[in-house]
Amino acid sequence: MLISGKDIAKRLRAELGDKAADLKAKHGITPGLATVLVGNDPASHSYVRMKRKACEELGIASFHHELPADTPQADVEKLVSELNADATVHGILVQLPLPDHINEKEVLDLISISKDVDGFHPMNIGMLAMKGREPHFLPCTPHGVMVMLHEAGVDLNGKNAVVLGRSNIVGIPVALLLMHANATVTIAHSRTQNLQEVCKNADILIAAVGRAEMVKGDWVKPGAVVIDVGVNRVDDDTRERGYRLVGDVDTDAVEAVASAVSPVPGGVGPMTIAMLMSNTFTSAEASLAQKA
Amino acid sequence: MLISGKDIAKRLRAELGDKAADLKAKHGITPGLATVLVGNDPASHSYVRMKRKACEELGIASFHHELPADTPQADVEKLVSELNADATVHGILVQLPLPDHINEKEVLDLISISKDVDGFHPMNIGMLAMKGREPHFLPCTPHGVMVMLHEAGVDLNGKNAVVLGRSNIVGIPVALLLMHANATVTIAHSRTQNLQEVCKNADILIAAVGRAEMVKGDWVKPGAVVIDVGVNRVDDDTRERGYRLVGDVDTDAVEAVASAVSPVPGGVGPMTIAMLMSNTFTSAEASLAQKA
Repeated sequence: MLISGKDIAKRLRAELGDKAADLKAKHGITPGLATVLVGNDPASHSYVRMKRKACEELGIASFHHELPADTPQADVEKLVSELNADATVHGILVQLPLPDHINEKEVLDLISISKDVDGFHPMNIGMLAMKGREPHFLPCTPHGVMVMLHEAGVDLNGKNAVVLGRSNIVGIPVALLLMHANATVTIAHSRTQNLQEVCKNADILIAAVGRAEMVKGDWVKPGAVVIDVGVNRVDDDTRERGYRLVGDVDTDAVEAVASAVSPVPGGVGPMTIAMLMSNTFTSAEASLAQKA
Repeated sequence: MLISGKDIAKRLRAELGDKAADLKAKHGITPGLATVLVGNDPASHSYVRMKRKACEELGIASFHHELPADTPQADVEKLVSELNADATVHGILVQLPLPDHINEKEVLDLISISKDVDGFHPMNIGMLAMKGREPHFLPCTPHGVMVMLHEAGVDLNGKNAVVLGRSNIVGIPVALLLMHANATVTIAHSRTQNLQEVCKNADILIAAVGRAEMVKGDWVKPGAVVIDVGVNRVDDDTRERGYRLVGDVDTDAVEAVASAVSPVPGGVGPMTIAMLMSNTFTSAEASLAQKA
């Protein structure tokens, strides 16, 4: 079975569009997402374009700020401060990576945690890590992974979940979310000995390591559920653009062994955007509650 | 081999005492730890007494505040705010648990993160979780565990570390520290299926689950290193006080299988206090750097 993030995301976007229309009709509030893009990275431009397109489709206002690659740190910070103060902006997304001369941490820490719809603020990650605490926003990709598992009817309770990769934006938060959902979680990574064996022990395997098709059929336990977070370019002369996108999972081989696997593209990617829209909507709703 | 936290802590305390004397001689600064104790819990009183005794031994000033069990939330918060503003206080320890009518989270979140020597603030836990971030302070017990592993010469790189327990103050932070130290980390807990098998797969086993002598000899891989964080009372009529303290590990049985195990008492307990002293000293040093 393929877990189509694309289909789940489509349904979620439709629901969010209805809810946004309702919020506007009843309370006159349009959720607003500010996107900040510094420099000319083509992939970043493409990501921001997709996010803005999703806003448009859902009736979420999109405030886009494009700054030249040599923008000084102070100017980026000034923009973030202005967006923090702007009541029409409910979410602020600073597209990463930022140019080398910018201190990324200082920019991200400046985003008000009530508008940190990416969920990357250390305070937010701390609350996500801790039992009995609720983060303002769940980071989009980890949240998308959890929704996909839920939609696929996967029982996590007491099961072995293996997270391959320990990045701040995927591996670490998804491991924490799986732990709170009562899975037994193993975080594996580049230094892990007998990596194949560790993966083969997983009832649920989350691949977020950034290596093209690293997870082969014989890395997966029969009947396991595999979520592929990777997005890797591999050369492909048959494509006009000269490459194709593949995940961290050898999908065809794994599909024959696993009970379910998410494809790339059409898996986690669309879910990440849907969760960003969801966080922006949630933030707009919360701003209403604060006013009341 | 027994890993004597008591001996390691003794050496660390001696080193810290020398450093504190040096800080006072050169800069006229005495590190200061404020302890806040609300109510009459005997165990809490005993813990705070040990911490204050360690301060005294090391030449760290101890400012103790004892409040009645029915102290209103506002008064506890007022005290914390005053301690935040007091330049002679470098560390603030609010002894847990607080009485039921007090919102523990709100009190803990109020402690300035530059004085949060327990390391429990969500911002601090977030920075501990994230790659490329440095928390102000490492939480005392998890830090103590890491120092014990280091002192015992344990190689963590790529090894299977299993953390039994997922508490905010031990399990979660120690799992994150082991992950940053390049271990492959599994967090197991009450819901874990085949718990014995998971534990038996560990090269390094951290027991922090709060069940007396739960980890038996046949739960441990031959040659593994076992750190016992548990402190449990079991009835014992042969003792004057009617109980004895045991860990989460059946020490005698495990010692015969493991290459090293930490005892209870005399293991993690003394390390926790030494790390609290270390954090208080570090905070005093940092206050000096801020003045310069």
